[in-house]
Amino acid sequence: MASHFVRPNIRAMHGYTPGEQPGTGDRVVKLNTNENPFPPSPKVMQAIRDIAPESLRRYPNPTADGFREVAASVLDIPQDMILAGNGSDDILTIATRTFVPPGGTLAYPDPTYSLYKVLANIEDAKVSPVHWKEGWQLPVDALLATKADAIYLANPNAPSGTFVTPDVVSELAEQFEGLLLIDEAYADFAEDNCLALASKYDNVVVSRTFSKAYSLAGMRFGYAVAKSAVISQMMKVKDSYNCDAISVIAATAAMQDQDYAQMTWNHVKQDRARVAEELTKLGFEVLPSQTNFVFAKVPGGDGLGMYKSLKELGILVRHFDTGTLKPYLRITIGTGQENNALLGGIRELLAKEKAA
Amino acid sequence: MASHFVRPNIRAMHGYTPGEQPGTGDRVVKLNTNENPFPPSPKVMQAIRDIAPESLRRYPNPTADGFREVAASVLDIPQDMILAGNGSDDILTIATRTFVPPGGTLAYPDPTYSLYKVLANIEDAKVSPVHWKEGWQLPVDALLATKADAIYLANPNAPSGTFVTPDVVSELAEQFEGLLLIDEAYADFAEDNCLALASKYDNVVVSRTFSKAYSLAGMRFGYAVAKSAVISQMMKVKDSYNCDAISVIAATAAMQDQDYAQMTWNHVKQDRARVAEELTKLGFEVLPSQTNFVFAKVPGGDGLGMYKSLKELGILVRHFDTGTLKPYLRITIGTGQENNALLGGIRELLAKEKAA
Repeated sequence: MASHFVRPNIRAMHGYTPGEQPGTGDRVVKLNTNENPFPPSPKVMQAIRDIAPESLRRYPNPTADGFREVAASVLDIPQDMILAGNGSDDILTIATRTFVPPGGTLAYPDPTYSLYKVLANIEDAKVSPVHWKEGWQLPVDALLATKADAIYLANPNAPSGTFVTPDVVSELAEQFEGLLLIDEAYADFAEDNCLALASKYDNVVVSRTFSKAYSLAGMRFGYAVAKSAVISQMMKVKDSYNCDAISVIAATAAMQDQDYAQMTWNHVKQDRARVAEELTKLGFEVLPSQTNFVFAKVPGGDGLGMYKSLKELGILVRHFDTGTLKPYLRITIGTGQENNALLGGIRELLAKEKAA
Repeated sequence: MASHFVRPNIRAMHGYTPGEQPGTGDRVVKLNTNENPFPPSPKVMQAIRDIAPESLRRYPNPTADGFREVAASVLDIPQDMILAGNGSDDILTIATRTFVPPGGTLAYPDPTYSLYKVLANIEDAKVSPVHWKEGWQLPVDALLATKADAIYLANPNAPSGTFVTPDVVSELAEQFEGLLLIDEAYADFAEDNCLALASKYDNVVVSRTFSKAYSLAGMRFGYAVAKSAVISQMMKVKDSYNCDAISVIAATAAMQDQDYAQMTWNHVKQDRARVAEELTKLGFEVLPSQTNFVFAKVPGGDGLGMYKSLKELGILVRHFDTGTLKPYLRITIGTGQENNALLGGIRELLAKEKAA
């Protein structure tokens, strides 16, 4: 098969591997891709049912202004500091194409969201992964030393669930000459966030998603916040109509229903504490989480084994079969019932192990 | 404003300029962005109303397999020859990132869809626009002489509406060493198409959209057809979840309702003949169209003037204020009533001109 017409960097690279997505009909306790356990707000579902055929027949507003107006009001920032995207993956893609030149360098604390490396590969750029300092602390000096074109910081981080405080991130933004993207996919489950840095620094982009906090992973909607001069450069790079009419209406309705969203966040945070406590009792080492998942070291360290055994019980969690992550499982906080099923399954497996 | 962290090619370029999109409430006869005049199939609207909250809460199938299965059956090709995209703009973006290296060259017959140049600019690649031969014939030899990495051919072409027959496109595919993308956004309004070339040649990608033929411009859905080895390279480049759950369900329902779609195409083709005939009677030179629009030279040649005068009458058409396109208007075929409003408006303007 001739493929000389495919760019060599694309031929050589591996694509991103999404988490397993069983069919919605499959009977599985699905705690592997960090969805919100609650359905979207009833107001979102109503807005979707009310959509007019005319909104689908016509091209959408190219910059999703209906959403930007509401988001500007909720976040208390000017509308021209907001860029809407087809999921925050789209925001990350747009950022990489805007700020990371071919042959340039993308740096990030490592381990983190594995998509960053893929995005750099597609751009034919190099990556500089920099190990987190002891206790998942931000390696500010080592990141600066990379002289990268851009640094991507997932905060809270995945898969660790850990958080870097805004004052430490500020230090990095202040001293860094390139573009600092703060990926806040999980920020709504954290005790603080870095949104204010986007107003303070010229070189900061904050990205957000509706996939987790607003129960809309299937809808694909995210946004970036940065100074308007930065947003206007990113606008040139995005697809002309990157957000469809329904996703804009759904995200807008979700953003307007803050009470509902916060109810779901409160539930997740409460049950996160409970799951962490129970797992600790069972001999797991659980990292302090500011997300809607916990990252926990399996007693005995056989992460892959426990992942497989749980899967046999119909409980799906995420395992990363690489380096220092191998002894861990990343477990999404589900409904109370799902979390109980998880804990029950783990107790069963540990009891069996003990008996053997 | 510091912007040294923005890539120089992005700083230097202009973004794509979408056609004007007045609010859906505005009372305007909107014949400027080639939407289908009919609403989406009632079955599409029903499928959207029936969407389950669970489909939105969870991540979608990453490769839109529900759609690919139906499309494979309707088009009579294997499923692994299909890649789904967030509009055909997403397909064009993915193709450019897969096949056009930074510093490489993208060629296309010119004038054509102005997005191609923007996509090359973002990639920091050069463009080789090659003038159409007399009568909008494909300049095969001149295109080959560019030695480009890729050639993008809109067929039927926009804004001319003209069509190159598959045997001539075959000649180009056969002799070209790079990747030939055939952008068939308007193919459903044409007498033939080049889908078979995607099965015949290793280096051909055909792209399609639901924006025009299926009345779903607001929904953002398109797809590519190519040999599976080519599709699997493009899969690495697309965003992980580029198509949202609702767009997949909507596009699948639209694809399944071929009777409805063909009814809309037949109406458009009939009224296209009528509008072309009437415009010709009024002194326009109308190019032979195989699309859902006509490209017509205004009597006297003041395209901009007539565009503005029509806009004052509440009739929006598209004018391109560049080079040889200046004397022309691109006019979408609307409902019978809209087309009558257009013709009435033009008659009124020409009568006024004559009286002055």
